[in-house]
Amino acid sequence: MKHFVLFTTGGTIASVSGEDGLSPAVSPPALVYAVETLSKKYQITCRNILNLDSSNIQSEEWQLIARSVFEVLPSCDGVVITHGTDTMAYTASMLTFMLENLQKPVILTGSQLPITSPLSDAMGNLATAFAAAEAGIPGVSVAFHHKIIRGCRAVKVRAMGYDAFASVNAPLRAEVFANGLKVYDSFPAPTGKTALNCRLCNDVFLLKLIPGTNPGIFDMLAKMPYRGVILEAFGAGGLHFIRRDLSEKIRMLVEKGVAVVVCSQCLYDSSDFSIYEVGRKILEAGAIPAGDMTTEAAVTKLMWALGQTDSPDLIREIFAASFAGEITLG
Amino acid sequence: MKHFVLFTTGGTIASVSGEDGLSPAVSPPALVYAVETLSKKYQITCRNILNLDSSNIQSEEWQLIARSVFEVLPSCDGVVITHGTDTMAYTASMLTFMLENLQKPVILTGSQLPITSPLSDAMGNLATAFAAAEAGIPGVSVAFHHKIIRGCRAVKVRAMGYDAFASVNAPLRAEVFANGLKVYDSFPAPTGKTALNCRLCNDVFLLKLIPGTNPGIFDMLAKMPYRGVILEAFGAGGLHFIRRDLSEKIRMLVEKGVAVVVCSQCLYDSSDFSIYEVGRKILEAGAIPAGDMTTEAAVTKLMWALGQTDSPDLIREIFAASFAGEITLG
Repeated sequence: MKHFVLFTTGGTIASVSGEDGLSPAVSPPALVYAVETLSKKYQITCRNILNLDSSNIQSEEWQLIARSVFEVLPSCDGVVITHGTDTMAYTASMLTFMLENLQKPVILTGSQLPITSPLSDAMGNLATAFAAAEAGIPGVSVAFHHKIIRGCRAVKVRAMGYDAFASVNAPLRAEVFANGLKVYDSFPAPTGKTALNCRLCNDVFLLKLIPGTNPGIFDMLAKMPYRGVILEAFGAGGLHFIRRDLSEKIRMLVEKGVAVVVCSQCLYDSSDFSIYEVGRKILEAGAIPAGDMTTEAAVTKLMWALGQTDSPDLIREIFAASFAGEITLG
Repeated sequence: MKHFVLFTTGGTIASVSGEDGLSPAVSPPALVYAVETLSKKYQITCRNILNLDSSNIQSEEWQLIARSVFEVLPSCDGVVITHGTDTMAYTASMLTFMLENLQKPVILTGSQLPITSPLSDAMGNLATAFAAAEAGIPGVSVAFHHKIIRGCRAVKVRAMGYDAFASVNAPLRAEVFANGLKVYDSFPAPTGKTALNCRLCNDVFLLKLIPGTNPGIFDMLAKMPYRGVILEAFGAGGLHFIRRDLSEKIRMLVEKGVAVVVCSQCLYDSSDFSIYEVGRKILEAGAIPAGDMTTEAAVTKLMWALGQTDSPDLIREIFAASFAGEITLG
């Protein structure tokens, strides 16, 4: 019987109704019962490490979760983490970078309705997560609605629907059918020693452009202690430069030593800033292209990269490399 | 034979290769040829009003396009507008608000590859747009990849794929099959006189949250001349309030007279800030919920609403009403 550690962190899955709306509770009986059911198949060690709506999960919690996972890895076959859905994609991406050369499965899951609700997807998602852990799919994944998604490729695309997460610009790693888990990912487990690397930098800003974005915002950002800016440009990679010239402002930020990473506000496909005149202006200004990365992966990778180095060249190198499948190279 | 006016504004559809990458040209021969082909079926008056990559299309262009459409409406059966795809959803949403009680069809289209490319989708998209105009589907729509999408419900979801636009939280209005256009939308055309209302306010900022968003950004925004902020919160409607309390900052902005509209960074489904404790904190702080509106519709509606009134109560009323199907009420 395989041995897994289950970390609970709060989220809808553990939420109960209160005066102020839904909020997470420690070990609600229905969750305990679900774990007991799964314990017929797996040896499960359950630990409550946080009790938060995932909107409140930030860098300090990412570090706590990563440390907790790293500590138990040698003594178990894998880890399942229950987590609110709202920021699960960010956490999954960040854990991907913090847990280097991860050979064992670390599976995040949660639910759109509390486990106490008759229509809840919690039991199915938990069972899916443990099935993925049992299959030994290495690295960080999100298990949701019968799908196993690479952690750094997951995006929450539905606020209410059960099929809440998409695998963006990457195939599903595995999927659950009535006859069991079908694994698509041939996943060569990384070689080298698994290491914990929790250093990160919080001084990162995400700027999603709208038509007519006031260039003055860049001057404001330059006055704040930001070391990194992720720019969600239009389409395959556009921004305006007539009347309100954003490309000159990007150049100014880069020259100030701010790492500027550019991605697309389109959910799917790769940005390519070399195709259009407007996009080329950004690259010339010194921006780092994020290729086909999700915004969640680009944000967390930049926070993590700035925790490793001050060197703009090294940041650029980190973004040009795929650590765990978060970017398609070539 | 129905008479349509075709306004060309630039975009990929009219782009040609140059030293600096693709950029739009006035009336490339392939586009002229396409219009000639369609002229066997429709009387088409063609006018080039802009020649821009749509990343450069901003409020001044929206006003020009809206005025151009309004001027020709009485003398034609509908209008088709070719436009770059990158900001087409923003333009379509804004035209929805600027052209009140629009009874005739105004159809935006474009392409993912220039009309000169053998693999271009331009001819198909143009033909789809004219088919929708011919069917008289009233109001503003986006025609793309055989689909007719309500303008204020369109979102560009693919940077490269031909199926580039999604109809978000609303059914397709119509769809082209090999046997013609199938119309799904029963579209009761609005009553009342069609009116042009171009007033808008550019002092709007879009803030897409990331975990650990520095609350200081709100203080910076308060120092800039912004009259409106759209907040893309997590999931169904969350933001963090531990360590970095954003809800207090929203309250500060609201008390300063800034209209704060909250929506979700999830592509699909409605945000509902009343479910979770974290979401309720935003509503208590005075934020205006955007329901199931797209970010593009929420941004343009706020710009337009602030062009109509200074009154926070009126802004709230405008957001609580559906002008052209941009929000699901009830």
